[in-house]
Amino acid sequence: MKNFFLTISAALLVTTAFAADPLPSWNDTAPKQAIIQFVEKVTKEGSPEFVPVPERIATFDNDGTLWAEQPIYFQLRFALDRVKALAPQHPEWKTKSPFNKLLSTPKEENVAVSEQELMEVIITAHAGITTEEFEKVVKDWISTAKHPKNGKLYTEMVYQPMLELLAYLRANGFKTFIVSGGGIEFMRPWTEKVYGIPPEQVIGSSGKLKFELRDGKPVILKLPEINFVDDKAGKPVGIQQHIGRRPIAAFGNSDGDLQMLQWTTAGGGPRFALIVHHDDEKREWAYDRTSRIGKLDKAWDEAIAKSWTVVSMKEDWKRVFPFE
Amino acid sequence: MKNFFLTISAALLVTTAFAADPLPSWNDTAPKQAIIQFVEKVTKEGSPEFVPVPERIATFDNDGTLWAEQPIYFQLRFALDRVKALAPQHPEWKTKSPFNKLLSTPKEENVAVSEQELMEVIITAHAGITTEEFEKVVKDWISTAKHPKNGKLYTEMVYQPMLELLAYLRANGFKTFIVSGGGIEFMRPWTEKVYGIPPEQVIGSSGKLKFELRDGKPVILKLPEINFVDDKAGKPVGIQQHIGRRPIAAFGNSDGDLQMLQWTTAGGGPRFALIVHHDDEKREWAYDRTSRIGKLDKAWDEAIAKSWTVVSMKEDWKRVFPFE
Repeated sequence: MKNFFLTISAALLVTTAFAADPLPSWNDTAPKQAIIQFVEKVTKEGSPEFVPVPERIATFDNDGTLWAEQPIYFQLRFALDRVKALAPQHPEWKTKSPFNKLLSTPKEENVAVSEQELMEVIITAHAGITTEEFEKVVKDWISTAKHPKNGKLYTEMVYQPMLELLAYLRANGFKTFIVSGGGIEFMRPWTEKVYGIPPEQVIGSSGKLKFELRDGKPVILKLPEINFVDDKAGKPVGIQQHIGRRPIAAFGNSDGDLQMLQWTTAGGGPRFALIVHHDDEKREWAYDRTSRIGKLDKAWDEAIAKSWTVVSMKEDWKRVFPFE
Repeated sequence: MKNFFLTISAALLVTTAFAADPLPSWNDTAPKQAIIQFVEKVTKEGSPEFVPVPERIATFDNDGTLWAEQPIYFQLRFALDRVKALAPQHPEWKTKSPFNKLLSTPKEENVAVSEQELMEVIITAHAGITTEEFEKVVKDWISTAKHPKNGKLYTEMVYQPMLELLAYLRANGFKTFIVSGGGIEFMRPWTEKVYGIPPEQVIGSSGKLKFELRDGKPVILKLPEINFVDDKAGKPVGIQQHIGRRPIAAFGNSDGDLQMLQWTTAGGGPRFALIVHHDDEKREWAYDRTSRIGKLDKAWDEAIAKSWTVVSMKEDWKRVFPFE
């Protein structure tokens, strides 16, 4: 009798799980089918392509893959705000590169700093403060700063289809990681709430840190020195250092993700690589081969040559942002 | 009716969980009581000391805390074996420090190299090989090398009470991490099997890495340069870089763990710090304030001053090794 009831409730659960579409914001086009096919393949016990749960590692780029990155990286806007706020205490920045570029360029879109310079600015501007103080600075900024185009919070400018994809993978035993060129301490204060990705699964660029006792109280201080740049060939290295095993699925949108996709797909067994192509000028932005932000050129060619999944935001996504 | 049966089976499960002793290799002395009290406190919903699951982070030192470290660090024995195996290809090592110390000291116990030198030896000896090749070297060694005292595999020289503690914490929603001065790539190939700790939850000392395409195939190469030394003041830094939040419980055995324990216990809310004191000459080894390996001096004083839990292996552990 007990078994009878348990069997009934188990059967109901299974039916419910299959009946609900796990990716409702995706059109029923090739990318959605490819994702579902891959997940069903690696989770089917007894199949030759079955992958045990601990090896179900999926890595996601952040800028342009999980949230928007136009007209400038959101982290660059953070840096601009911080440099302006801190400039009175640093008169030397007026003439010192790259700070002077942030302070003197009239239009934000025209600020020409490299990823490395952006990290340098953020790290130098916050040298000597503790990691806890920096966390508070980020939390204050992320909960108030607004996007210039639509006045939304930056954490609202995330892609609804990708939120569903993250949840779908996790429901199927995947551990989801962010692997971003952005600052690790700039992302960690909000990724758990926004993406369901805890800080220990966020990999990014970083500055050096120092532990010390300050009046007997242990603190970790930010030093004015770059520790690691998690972009391009840095991404597989960041993955190796933090995760220590190769992902079986990786998701990106630009040439900065190419090496992560190469590393992921070169492993044995079933592999999945996906590139988000920004071709939706109406709902988002349209940019690729010649863009200064999120340039997609070599990675696109390789995606075509190697039959990786390329998502057209315009064709494959029913909805782009959660607020639509 | 359905609810009735479900209630019965849930009640049975709870009874079973309470009936079985989660720490059977611990004597019913103060440390065991302190551990159980802490776990029950932070997992009790509605209590003012309740800690949500994502924040239940516990960090463990490895050498001397999870496995033995006498008469020399097991990793030093690995380095000795590797240096001897590779010496014919490196005639320059005969006169070059620290290699010459490993090659010419007759008794292994007398090889005087610092943690930093040990990392240097391992990193330099394996420069230019891929991370996958190194993983194979470690797996081959760890599955065959034997401890000189009792002929056991090194992975059998782990502490049974600590294995039970790891499992007990995980059963209560904790995420368990290793934070060791040992090489991250020396530990990761076997920690999942031996401790149930996956590679992404292992933090250790590391060398720099480089991604490249070798004849079109992506590889990650080991470079002859130290990236990070995860010891002493490096431990809180390693924790911040990899986990990004402060542990609520930390476990160590020597002065190398002091800063990790300080950092852990200085956070708000309930905190737990434990030190394993090696005082069991009969079943294991006895050493503390004056030992070259695993020196326990300042951390012991601080443990007493701050009422951290100190485990006497002799008094508090019913069994030391699984093979007993």
